[in-house]
Amino acid sequence: MKDTVDIDIQVRYAETDQMGVAYYANYLIWFEVGRSEFCRQRGFRYADLEASGYKLVVSDVSCRYRNSARYDEIVIVRTRLKGVHKRMITFEYQVLRKGQEEVIAEGETRHICVDSKGKTKSLPEKFLICLSG
Amino acid sequence: MKDTVDIDIQVRYAETDQMGVAYYANYLIWFEVGRSEFCRQRGFRYADLEASGYKLVVSDVSCRYRNSARYDEIVIVRTRLKGVHKRMITFEYQVLRKGQEEVIAEGETRHICVDSKGKTKSLPEKFLICLSG
Amino acid sequence: MKDTVDIDIQVRYAETDQMGVAYYANYLIWFEVGRSEFCRQRGFRYADLEASGYKLVVSDVSCRYRNSARYDEIVIVRTRLKGVHKRMITFEYQVLRKGQEEVIAEGETRHICVDSKGKTKSLPEKFLICLSG
Amino acid sequence: MKDTVDIDIQVRYAETDQMGVAYYANYLIWFEVGRSEFCRQRGFRYADLEASGYKLVVSDVSCRYRNSARYDEIVIVRTRLKGVHKRMITFEYQVLRKGQEEVIAEGETRHICVDSKGKTKSLPEKFLICLSG
Repeated sequence: MKDTVDIDIQVRYAETDQMGVAYYANYLIWFEVGRSEFCRQRGFRYADLEASGYKLVVSDVSCRYRNSARYDEIVIVRTRLKGVHKRMITFEYQVLRKGQEEVIAEGETRHICVDSKGKTKSLPEKFLICLSG
Repeated sequence: MKDTVDIDIQVRYAETDQMGVAYYANYLIWFEVGRSEFCRQRGFRYADLEASGYKLVVSDVSCRYRNSARYDEIVIVRTRLKGVHKRMITFEYQVLRKGQEEVIAEGETRHICVDSKGKTKSLPEKFLICLSG
Repeated sequence: MKDTVDIDIQVRYAETDQMGVAYYANYLIWFEVGRSEFCRQRGFRYADLEASGYKLVVSDVSCRYRNSARYDEIVIVRTRLKGVHKRMITFEYQVLRKGQEEVIAEGETRHICVDSKGKTKSLPEKFLICLSG
Repeated sequence: MKDTVDIDIQVRYAETDQMGVAYYANYLIWFEVGRSEFCRQRGFRYADLEASGYKLVVSDVSCRYRNSARYDEIVIVRTRLKGVHKRMITFEYQVLRKGQEEVIAEGETRHICVDSKGKTKSLPEKFLICLSG
């Protein structure tokens, strides 16, 4: 199994700002699209995890911007599971310019698994197995 | 009691697009900020209404854009209750350039009151009384 | 040539609100994605129009919400050119639940063509011809 | 002169997600609101800097989420200039629950000064002096 999952995103006009490039906060939205797709490719929908009474709450995010993305261009969000501990999951992302494979940005998100009351919990075994591929 | 409620909004960089003005969908967010403030000035928080097990679901929106708003400028969102029927509420909005009172945009939202199961309900009396001022 | 153009959009977590459905302003972003795709299918990119020194400024928008869209589900945005006059263009949209073809929302946007100085202009012939199919 | 600048932000409904709290990417928008206010309190508008032909491009961002913010509550964004070198500026932020001074999130953004052609440049002296207070 490939350890990265790719998804294409076409930059929306709404995502640009007056500098003429995608506004920096949108990369975090794209990371989320990337990890949703990662879960899907690994056999479950993130929505299923929530339906089971669990949530993955973001505890940390970082992003380094190397270049910028413009309206209408297609970027690839490449997601990799960096680490998985029972109660904490770390994803890594690259945002690439499609066709050129130039890295526009790269980042990381860390998540904590909580139950419906907000208590830290171990991620249920079946999701752990899926994620780890 | 004044029949309109004003709130200032300073245009965020995030809200601009590559035309250099506030992106059109943001006006609907500003309308929401306006009606939240309208409720607050009328004596309740919209969050209280949701806590009581009711929601106001948007059924219709329209907006006419007469001019544009730029980064960092302050606009006034002026909200008025256009009509209130037991199960339907209509708000009217004007977005004005602060200081000049120039109308940048104007619009309307219509809302239906539903309970936690999504059934159409009458808005509870106490909220109706508040809204009607 | 078909007179409507479809594009799939998968609802992002970022697009949901605390009601658990896609927030109403996002439909206007989806309309924009729909008309970008409409232009593309008709032979030009909206970015080309801007590169030629023209812009399509939104003057009016309306949307009727019939139902709601949830995280992760795929909606179809179906765009149709309702009317094209030299200086004004009207698009119509339907947002459909994929697979079920249920109409979740429908709306309309009206646009005015302006040049780089913001003066109202006729849309250049070549774009008019493309749009009209 | 105080070395931090505070600004209040009231959480918008649009900013919540289906977890019922402010979506994580919005904190980056709040950081931007914080640093706009920081510049204003230091004697210039970020828009003036762009009008002078310069831009501050974000090169890095990080955020640690300690707690969450809910619809309608007021958070304080507290911004501090962490470091300023001629071509690079670092801001630090805290997001606090108003009234309780509880830290909800904290983060950092790094910016590079570029001219209108995208070349790295020293930030003009007058802005440097303002920023440094």
